[in-house]
Amino acid sequence: MSDQAPEQQAPEQGDEGYALERGLTDKVLDAIDAMEARTLDTLLEPLHPADIADLLEQIGGPERRALLSLWSMGIDGEILSELDENLREEVIGYLPEGVLTEAVRELESDDVVDLVEDMEEAQQQAILDVLEDADRAAVEQALSYPEFSAGRLMQRELVVAPEDWNVGQAIDFLRAEDDLPEQFYHIILVDPVYHPTGYVTLGKLLGAPRQTKLRTLTEDSFRAIPVTQPESEVAYAFNQYHLISAPVVDEDNRLVGVITIDDAMVVLDEEAEEDILRLAGVSGEESLSDRTLDTVRQRFPWLAVNLATAILASLVIAQFEEILAQVVALAVLMPIVASMGGNAGTQSLTVAVRAIATRDLTGSNLWRVVRRETVAGMLNGAIFAVIMGVIGILWFGTPALGLVIAVAMVVNLMVAALAGILVPVVLDKLGVDPALASGAFVTTVTDVVGFFAFLGLAAALLV
Amino acid sequence: MSDQAPEQQAPEQGDEGYALERGLTDKVLDAIDAMEARTLDTLLEPLHPADIADLLEQIGGPERRALLSLWSMGIDGEILSELDENLREEVIGYLPEGVLTEAVRELESDDVVDLVEDMEEAQQQAILDVLEDADRAAVEQALSYPEFSAGRLMQRELVVAPEDWNVGQAIDFLRAEDDLPEQFYHIILVDPVYHPTGYVTLGKLLGAPRQTKLRTLTEDSFRAIPVTQPESEVAYAFNQYHLISAPVVDEDNRLVGVITIDDAMVVLDEEAEEDILRLAGVSGEESLSDRTLDTVRQRFPWLAVNLATAILASLVIAQFEEILAQVVALAVLMPIVASMGGNAGTQSLTVAVRAIATRDLTGSNLWRVVRRETVAGMLNGAIFAVIMGVIGILWFGTPALGLVIAVAMVVNLMVAALAGILVPVVLDKLGVDPALASGAFVTTVTDVVGFFAFLGLAAALLV
Repeated sequence: MSDQAPEQQAPEQGDEGYALERGLTDKVLDAIDAMEARTLDTLLEPLHPADIADLLEQIGGPERRALLSLWSMGIDGEILSELDENLREEVIGYLPEGVLTEAVRELESDDVVDLVEDMEEAQQQAILDVLEDADRAAVEQALSYPEFSAGRLMQRELVVAPEDWNVGQAIDFLRAEDDLPEQFYHIILVDPVYHPTGYVTLGKLLGAPRQTKLRTLTEDSFRAIPVTQPESEVAYAFNQYHLISAPVVDEDNRLVGVITIDDAMVVLDEEAEEDILRLAGVSGEESLSDRTLDTVRQRFPWLAVNLATAILASLVIAQFEEILAQVVALAVLMPIVASMGGNAGTQSLTVAVRAIATRDLTGSNLWRVVRRETVAGMLNGAIFAVIMGVIGILWFGTPALGLVIAVAMVVNLMVAALAGILVPVVLDKLGVDPALASGAFVTTVTDVVGFFAFLGLAAALLV
Repeated sequence: MSDQAPEQQAPEQGDEGYALERGLTDKVLDAIDAMEARTLDTLLEPLHPADIADLLEQIGGPERRALLSLWSMGIDGEILSELDENLREEVIGYLPEGVLTEAVRELESDDVVDLVEDMEEAQQQAILDVLEDADRAAVEQALSYPEFSAGRLMQRELVVAPEDWNVGQAIDFLRAEDDLPEQFYHIILVDPVYHPTGYVTLGKLLGAPRQTKLRTLTEDSFRAIPVTQPESEVAYAFNQYHLISAPVVDEDNRLVGVITIDDAMVVLDEEAEEDILRLAGVSGEESLSDRTLDTVRQRFPWLAVNLATAILASLVIAQFEEILAQVVALAVLMPIVASMGGNAGTQSLTVAVRAIATRDLTGSNLWRVVRRETVAGMLNGAIFAVIMGVIGILWFGTPALGLVIAVAMVVNLMVAALAGILVPVVLDKLGVDPALASGAFVTTVTDVVGFFAFLGLAAALLV
């Protein structure tokens, strides 16, 4: 690194990556123990706010409290923005009023919105009260848009120019303007009634002669985003069309704000995270810094649903008590069919849930995908039918048992694949998040079909 | 939309989102059937390349072939870049040589790298051959860096200025330069030996007086990325530090390229996708446009691993044939314990896998998280022990059976939580992707422990 490099550094640079260095956290914990505010300042001050937030999340509750009482003046708005939502209220509760006021005032309006939108009303009001009037109005306006909408995500600080300006006029305007946004990449062109009609990158602006008309420099990628559009759609648009920023318009198509790619990237990341957790039956809001009882509460519903489906499967098994008592090998092999079906179903449903999320599964290709999944399930079923058939015969010496498990395997893997694709598609059509609910339905289908096929065939063939 | 709006539009604008309109795909299919090249052109020409690529992915193979023979002149480099990797070679195979040459030549070097890096050598060479010498050298240089490294991701087109320049010199230089990159957001400052020392946003440049020194305008967020850094680390850095672009340096710390946030966003999206699919036992490379046999091949390994673990569980059950033959209720209830354990384990392991991927689980908080998971598992185990104990007694009228399933439930849910967190951590330490392999290990643990606890207790208490 050259000696001109700025002070701020990744906590650990190099090929190995960016995770917070263990040694640093330990040093911070030592400084907290020794109550050395100066040492803390030396350790934390060079860190990026995002890394300080990570550190606050990774240490324990008592240490966090001690750190904040020793180093409250170090907490700024950016650190609060980066903090996990579950910890914000706790951290804010420890801050002296002056520090909080200072921290909140330095944030852009979209970051204040993000900070306060999930707070309880009293705390939200306390934070809004410290804002200057214009900023408070902007935040309150943003909060009036639906949760998870473009209106919540956008910033209101933007740079516009009349669409008939030329490059020289735009550059002179920017030079004269004192209060430019902290980050901006485009100038948005507006018509006389403030409809956005295109945008020009700063690079194009800088590269063009002064007399060039701005409207001849606009980007093809321009598209306006309705202020009520869900943020998941916004993130999709940024990812699909490689947008860097996009103007946001109200119902009259008037420019009301701008969304930049870094905000869209955060949403895209959160959406994927939520899908991953929900597919595993974990609340999308769960976080590592949750307390034990929160974890119990968040895990419970899915386990309860699973218990219900497992009992349903047991009721199917109970229909075959007689044959189970006669052929105990059935009890030994029974879980294999259900487990294979469950896994094959999970494979199909995960592919389907993601394809729905990325808009790759549409009316045009649905039936082709259903056919492919079903045939693939049948073929894998056939392969495992042969394997398990042979194992069944070798293990228990009963050819009929091998036949039973083989047939059950084909049936169950085919049904698993079919359910794995159809359940999420139907749930999506019904407006239910397929990531959240598909697993329970598909598992029920594969368990019931698996046990029924295996034990039913056994009852028919083995007595 | 004002009448100044550019031609290019989202296929379906509004709150409802961006999925390709069913009607449009149907019209395209009709035009293909009727072999109407003009109609095809009218339908497709206004679409964004990313949407055309989606359409090519969603229609069937024969239709795709027909479309490409009717409309090959419409295929450009951007569409090829947007296409799913599995389809690129097929589509390129259908293109006349002139169209392909034209398409490849218009791409930036990083897009050509992305296009050719997974191709077979002969086809890769054919594409490199149509490039101009300087571009080919750039692409070959990029291909010399490891796969999935910053060197593959970066573009070589960049804008630099000596660190001692002032704003006026930089602006004059940009005005005079004919060959600016298509997209750039920063000017990178370099010292005399081409080490990057900071960067200045174009916004700051435009807002500052001409005599201001560039080095007084640099951004805090500046950090250089080593050319060999894995792309997953690069994506993490962009997301964590809200970077818009970042300079890439070689081992001598010399500037060799720049990575922009849109490329990082694609990587972030791909990484999350890969984790989701791998957690479900699906190859991270699987795609909706795969053929049936590819799907069979990609799903098979995980099912085979699962079969092995299921057989292991069956071997445990086989140890208890005697008690199973005596108390058939055990066979009925047995799957419940295993299923609850499997689900609780999946919850823990998914949280752990994501926390490892997002660097939220570190040495500092590992034991706190392990403790929390174990206690949470025990508490949920206790709740479900009571529920299942009561159900067991009511269903089969045997209090001892209720006790057996209750104890087995607590044991299994606690072990599931513990395995769910420790298995991914250990795999990660061993350099194995925890998303890929954790599921098999955790399921084995929960199956074996679940069956053993339940049947073992039953053997001890019920005879």
